[in-house]
Amino acid sequence: MAKNKKTSRSWGGRFKTAPSPRMQAFTASIGFDIRLFPYDVRASIAHARMLAATKIISAAERDKIVRGLRAVEKELASGRFKPDTSDEDIHMAVERRLIEKIGAPGAKLHTARSRNDQVATDVRLFVKDAIAAVDAAGEKLQAVLVEVASRHPRAILPGYTHLQRAQPVLLGHHLLAYYDMLERDRGRLADCLVRADVLTLGSGALAGTTLPIDRKLVAHELGFARVCENSIDGVADRDFIVEFLAAVALVLTHLSRLANEITLWVSAEFGFAMLDDAYSTGSSMMPQKKNPDIAELVRGKSGRTYGNLIAVLTALKGLPLAYNSDLQEDKEPLFDSTDTALHCLEMTAALLASLRFDEEAMAAAASDPLLLATDLAEHLVAEGVAFREAHEITGRLVRHSLETGVALTDMSDAELTTFCPALAGASALLDAARSIDRRRSAGGTSGALLTRRLRKLERRHARKAR
Amino acid sequence: MAKNKKTSRSWGGRFKTAPSPRMQAFTASIGFDIRLFPYDVRASIAHARMLAATKIISAAERDKIVRGLRAVEKELASGRFKPDTSDEDIHMAVERRLIEKIGAPGAKLHTARSRNDQVATDVRLFVKDAIAAVDAAGEKLQAVLVEVASRHPRAILPGYTHLQRAQPVLLGHHLLAYYDMLERDRGRLADCLVRADVLTLGSGALAGTTLPIDRKLVAHELGFARVCENSIDGVADRDFIVEFLAAVALVLTHLSRLANEITLWVSAEFGFAMLDDAYSTGSSMMPQKKNPDIAELVRGKSGRTYGNLIAVLTALKGLPLAYNSDLQEDKEPLFDSTDTALHCLEMTAALLASLRFDEEAMAAAASDPLLLATDLAEHLVAEGVAFREAHEITGRLVRHSLETGVALTDMSDAELTTFCPALAGASALLDAARSIDRRRSAGGTSGALLTRRLRKLERRHARKAR
Amino acid sequence: MAKNKKTSRSWGGRFKTAPSPRMQAFTASIGFDIRLFPYDVRASIAHARMLAATKIISAAERDKIVRGLRAVEKELASGRFKPDTSDEDIHMAVERRLIEKIGAPGAKLHTARSRNDQVATDVRLFVKDAIAAVDAAGEKLQAVLVEVASRHPRAILPGYTHLQRAQPVLLGHHLLAYYDMLERDRGRLADCLVRADVLTLGSGALAGTTLPIDRKLVAHELGFARVCENSIDGVADRDFIVEFLAAVALVLTHLSRLANEITLWVSAEFGFAMLDDAYSTGSSMMPQKKNPDIAELVRGKSGRTYGNLIAVLTALKGLPLAYNSDLQEDKEPLFDSTDTALHCLEMTAALLASLRFDEEAMAAAASDPLLLATDLAEHLVAEGVAFREAHEITGRLVRHSLETGVALTDMSDAELTTFCPALAGASALLDAARSIDRRRSAGGTSGALLTRRLRKLERRHARKAR
Amino acid sequence: MAKNKKTSRSWGGRFKTAPSPRMQAFTASIGFDIRLFPYDVRASIAHARMLAATKIISAAERDKIVRGLRAVEKELASGRFKPDTSDEDIHMAVERRLIEKIGAPGAKLHTARSRNDQVATDVRLFVKDAIAAVDAAGEKLQAVLVEVASRHPRAILPGYTHLQRAQPVLLGHHLLAYYDMLERDRGRLADCLVRADVLTLGSGALAGTTLPIDRKLVAHELGFARVCENSIDGVADRDFIVEFLAAVALVLTHLSRLANEITLWVSAEFGFAMLDDAYSTGSSMMPQKKNPDIAELVRGKSGRTYGNLIAVLTALKGLPLAYNSDLQEDKEPLFDSTDTALHCLEMTAALLASLRFDEEAMAAAASDPLLLATDLAEHLVAEGVAFREAHEITGRLVRHSLETGVALTDMSDAELTTFCPALAGASALLDAARSIDRRRSAGGTSGALLTRRLRKLERRHARKAR
Repeated sequence: MAKNKKTSRSWGGRFKTAPSPRMQAFTASIGFDIRLFPYDVRASIAHARMLAATKIISAAERDKIVRGLRAVEKELASGRFKPDTSDEDIHMAVERRLIEKIGAPGAKLHTARSRNDQVATDVRLFVKDAIAAVDAAGEKLQAVLVEVASRHPRAILPGYTHLQRAQPVLLGHHLLAYYDMLERDRGRLADCLVRADVLTLGSGALAGTTLPIDRKLVAHELGFARVCENSIDGVADRDFIVEFLAAVALVLTHLSRLANEITLWVSAEFGFAMLDDAYSTGSSMMPQKKNPDIAELVRGKSGRTYGNLIAVLTALKGLPLAYNSDLQEDKEPLFDSTDTALHCLEMTAALLASLRFDEEAMAAAASDPLLLATDLAEHLVAEGVAFREAHEITGRLVRHSLETGVALTDMSDAELTTFCPALAGASALLDAARSIDRRRSAGGTSGALLTRRLRKLERRHARKAR
Repeated sequence: MAKNKKTSRSWGGRFKTAPSPRMQAFTASIGFDIRLFPYDVRASIAHARMLAATKIISAAERDKIVRGLRAVEKELASGRFKPDTSDEDIHMAVERRLIEKIGAPGAKLHTARSRNDQVATDVRLFVKDAIAAVDAAGEKLQAVLVEVASRHPRAILPGYTHLQRAQPVLLGHHLLAYYDMLERDRGRLADCLVRADVLTLGSGALAGTTLPIDRKLVAHELGFARVCENSIDGVADRDFIVEFLAAVALVLTHLSRLANEITLWVSAEFGFAMLDDAYSTGSSMMPQKKNPDIAELVRGKSGRTYGNLIAVLTALKGLPLAYNSDLQEDKEPLFDSTDTALHCLEMTAALLASLRFDEEAMAAAASDPLLLATDLAEHLVAEGVAFREAHEITGRLVRHSLETGVALTDMSDAELTTFCPALAGASALLDAARSIDRRRSAGGTSGALLTRRLRKLERRHARKAR
Repeated sequence: MAKNKKTSRSWGGRFKTAPSPRMQAFTASIGFDIRLFPYDVRASIAHARMLAATKIISAAERDKIVRGLRAVEKELASGRFKPDTSDEDIHMAVERRLIEKIGAPGAKLHTARSRNDQVATDVRLFVKDAIAAVDAAGEKLQAVLVEVASRHPRAILPGYTHLQRAQPVLLGHHLLAYYDMLERDRGRLADCLVRADVLTLGSGALAGTTLPIDRKLVAHELGFARVCENSIDGVADRDFIVEFLAAVALVLTHLSRLANEITLWVSAEFGFAMLDDAYSTGSSMMPQKKNPDIAELVRGKSGRTYGNLIAVLTALKGLPLAYNSDLQEDKEPLFDSTDTALHCLEMTAALLASLRFDEEAMAAAASDPLLLATDLAEHLVAEGVAFREAHEITGRLVRHSLETGVALTDMSDAELTTFCPALAGASALLDAARSIDRRRSAGGTSGALLTRRLRKLERRHARKAR
Repeated sequence: MAKNKKTSRSWGGRFKTAPSPRMQAFTASIGFDIRLFPYDVRASIAHARMLAATKIISAAERDKIVRGLRAVEKELASGRFKPDTSDEDIHMAVERRLIEKIGAPGAKLHTARSRNDQVATDVRLFVKDAIAAVDAAGEKLQAVLVEVASRHPRAILPGYTHLQRAQPVLLGHHLLAYYDMLERDRGRLADCLVRADVLTLGSGALAGTTLPIDRKLVAHELGFARVCENSIDGVADRDFIVEFLAAVALVLTHLSRLANEITLWVSAEFGFAMLDDAYSTGSSMMPQKKNPDIAELVRGKSGRTYGNLIAVLTALKGLPLAYNSDLQEDKEPLFDSTDTALHCLEMTAALLASLRFDEEAMAAAASDPLLLATDLAEHLVAEGVAFREAHEITGRLVRHSLETGVALTDMSDAELTTFCPALAGASALLDAARSIDRRRSAGGTSGALLTRRLRKLERRHARKAR
């Protein structure tokens, strides 16, 4: 019986001529799916055990296969076994090498499965690990945000809307806005996990198998929470990848906002923070430069995560069921977004932890009494003026201050009361710290609220760290 | 005291000159955010009640405001009140009209809030409704899938991989693959709802307010599960929109796959189904044409949902905290994806329910004995041949059949056993219906599994319909 | 002979039952393609003239058709004729109304054409106009850039890399960077025009027609430069839309950069420019706010142009030839990107022209002697020091200045020469204006180069304006 | 004088502490920009020659630098020199190695340039080569289309709209639709080349240099058509990359359409063509499968080209001038889209050339007389019936044929004339080949037009091939 001994091509029988090498190079995924090898081996071991449990193979064959697979895994990990494009993909590479090592029993491993259900299983195992890793990196950045916020419990900076100074806020309050974004990111990842945590092995090519397999056994062995209910969906579904890519795109969106703020904070114009030498780069031409390279890269890398999301959505659009090779295009974007999320979370944490905030500079920027115009208006409200009128009065007062160059804090009661009698004594309100402390309703920036929340979060992360 | 009486511009005091009309036309969002008016009125009523409960306004003022807002809502619903671009947005339009109607108390409504927290609240209310509506439309399409599957309990068609006939499957099994996709879509929407279900009102412009508001009261009144914990995040966050847009993009991805399959099924070449006259269109030039217009549009509309997702992600990228006007760009994509999802789910259900499947044509296409080559190989496995070898043997048998033109079912045992002795009697296996019934492991296409699942799903949807 | 008198449905004969109203509402494009009516009428008039010239209809019929079409156009322009969804699209609406008005000859207009070639023709006419309009708006913004640059011929501000002050540059030089971006944008539009400027009418449904039409005549009448060479491509091609959308996406990318810079310039921290009251907006809550709303919206609107591009690319992906209804999804993104480009170019020009630059504030920011570190290093090069060494020396000098707080300009020759003897006298170099003037090689920021270029550009735009 | 001897870090002087290794790994681009080494060396050689021509360095120094650079290039090409992440990027790696090899003169190479203008130059050189390569691959696919069309000069298949059979067309006519798409693709590349063909070297970090460089000399040496006119734009511009990525996205859009058609053609249902064994793949589970893997991958790879386009657009959005590290994110998408375009064009050509078209099967599919309904309607027009009426009459005839099961070709004149007297003798028209030959107006599918065009195109490609 003639066989294709040299390659792992598993489908030679039906074909008269050999595949074109150019085609092999083009269609092979081994160049990137080799990254899945630990998952492929793990899933194959579970599959072999099930085949033995259901008597499709013998216990002796199972043992040889399992030992063989572990040996192949070691060879792949060490780089001693280097698959090439004639292997098509990691699945065929592992099987080919297994057969080379253990002979006949290896030829039984692919019983009752197809690469279609196998690759879906491998990728789901990968995504489960990726979710855990990104979640952990997100949690670490949250811990850094809490730590930096706690380091500066009373630091005040201007809160901005439209990049115009709006109202004074506590630095900690500002940083915790990012904490909450990350909390939602982690929630999305957790939700994605539930839908990814499904065994597809056993779907066969698309219709299941005629052999008496036991899918629950495999699910249990591999730690999947559920078995997919429809074999066609099992091989055709890539939702869990798109969902993960969308969650990562939002992670990077959040990081791009923080990164952009860091570039502002360390600019000469804002001067709110200083870069550590170890976390900044210089210029090849300009000797004085010190650049927030990390922040810029993190900001820019949002682009690749949006691109990866679009790449996979596009590849899926309009595909007839069940498996099509277009699905092979899912892996590189998945790997890239995983790595991008991990690196960017990690580096943002390192950068943030290394920033030296300049509390004085921030306070000076927040000290402009105009930032307390809303406090004045709200004071008038408390004095019985309708808010819309109070806003109008205070607006004219602001204009007066700008036109005369006299700060609100420097105006006498006489001057203030020409705008509204109720402004008498109001200049006492014009203190940033006091303003902040008065914002005590839920979610506000007051120091009391911040302190309480920071203590709670510190306990949460301390528990985790243990 | 001079006032801008003619417009609802709420910020005139500080400005010396009036806004440029060109700028007003460019920056106004009233052209599209008018759609939010029911939410804006509802949120304002809740806000007014809270202002009264906390004694910031009087009960009498509250009553006038509430009655006035209801009147404004009616005027907007009937089209009697038509805001224009000088109103900027729906919030200012409603307030302006309220003041016109009830005078002084109206000028107190905007106390302790900003448009920044107000618009976030309105949009969250909209998204909560949008999620419920898309979920219901998804459930209806699921019910149609079950209904159509139940109508054809034994219909067999070829299952495809790579658009090549692969193995026979039941039509019902094929359709339920889409059921499971929609189930995940609905799961994503439910998860998104949890993160959308958060009150942002009370965040003020970005830092909360100095007035003694009660946010829990407002949350309770509006049916929000939680109050946002950080005022800066409250006004800057649009995650819930991106998450909803990503969920919708996947809904449309799934529908694009089904739609593309329908265009195949109703083609002359496949001939698996016939379009109903009422759900197809003709040609202005070619008198014989009958086109699956709905399916094509649904497929094509996936594009706009991907585009809407990218539009909002891009708008968010790199934005410094807190509110920036870029966030105004969230609404049109949100509205468009909501409508697209609703219409496409509804029309796909109508189209699918109206299709007449041709069971004979499908069965004929599935009757090619080559589609049972895997069954032969698995038979050899049961007879003790290693799968990889069984695959090779069967592959050569396939090649022999193709080269000689003799169907597998027409080969004698003598002929078959030249390939492998274990093939004796195997041609009895070469029956599509029997093949299908042998795929009994979890998730497989067997009739028994399908029937059991359809009964369960029918019960589920019957319960819902009651 | 029974006819569908009430609607313009042109394809009733083959169908037994009427279309579902829900389907009609879903598939109708009249809601947005009504915008094409002037192009549809124009193309129909040219078509009718050709039909008469080739004797397919009579001269008398032609005259009735042309007069009828002009009347329909007026009714559409004035809003007296309001098509509804039973009209499907603008083409059928115009034809229906024409037949209502002129009777029998109207029923001959659709001879030898299909909506497939007709809509492609209408959209190409639209795109040609859109290109001209966006080009003109781009040119106007270029003229404003030149005008603003000329208003501040000697204004110096820090040039930035990584948002860190890098080297002093002239404001005019900085602004002309945007001039050059727009020049490329206009070049792309001109190139796109060449490929859009092709007549598709005469392609029929996809295969041409058996009637003796004269396409060159129609091309001439409509001002198309060429006739498409392949009828299938003629109805299936939407490249010209994607190319236009990509060109617009780059326009908005450029505007987003300028817009973001404007938000920086008008921030309190930079203070390089002041917003005009007429081109800024206030806050509903904070009386002191004055926001660069236009700039933020322009920046954010980049998102929708990226989204529109992706929407159409996605709709085209994988479509079999020739026409499919997915192509109907081309119009809304096209219209939206056209309007976005026009409005954003116009508003950026208005905003920029209204900015008041603060030359003193910019000069102060550029006066930091550290920005001239490169000049020092290049001075050392001129004195024979290898650049890499000169960079290292100057870098250490910078560090010394930062650590001691002594500005480079305040260091004595004695101090300077401890770093390198060749630094003797170098502090004379540390003048921003002088530094700028020394950058005289092509493309550099020197005043001489800028003046020469501004004069040239002023002449160019003056010529255009005449 | 202390120096960083071990690394190529060019900016150590100003920094007190060494960069964090984690940061170095994150910010280094050497992992992918090593691909630019031939361009980097070429540009550096041109730069060195200019420095000598302008007396900034000596002729002897120049010679050492040029020889050294050539040696470094050889080391990089052979893999003997392997840069690491401490080298940051290819520019620093080359300079570091040059200095190691030739000592002092190497330290002069970076005079009057920055990595900002250097990388822009390298990438432009790369893009110029990429455009030429993609153009050549496009031209080869065009030649294959012509060759395949010429191989089947009279093959008829149904033309489709909405994937419904519409009218018979020649296979050659259908294939040439793709020829014209590729012609536009090549036109876009040529236009992109003009804007890419600009020297940026000499822009310095962003403001030019104070040294007396000669940019025209460098442009001439490197073969650039022009020198950029604005140094800030020179380092900040990545339009040429976006434009190239957009052009490639359209190439892949076109290929995805052809690829999808090929999957249809080789399906059992269409049966219009057979895959060559060498250009198809099998299944690991199903022995009978033969899959159009290449076509599916090409179709799916459209996704990555859309993703790459979005990645770079996103990275550019809102960036302040001039250089920011976000721009580093341009390279991987550029490289990926270049490779994708080249491979997909090449493999589509190979696949198409290897397809065996089944002329009989195509002809049978096109022989349905309903496809000639338009011919009947146009015949009635020639007989004086208004087209809209002729369409209605023919539509009813079609319905009659479908309801009675009597083909149009089998109807007697007596039967036909009950629909319209002018239909007498019309059944003679109902021949696909005759119908095709009557479509003789410009762009139509007639054999005469096709033959003429094929001859012309054969000559064009023959000329090129010589």
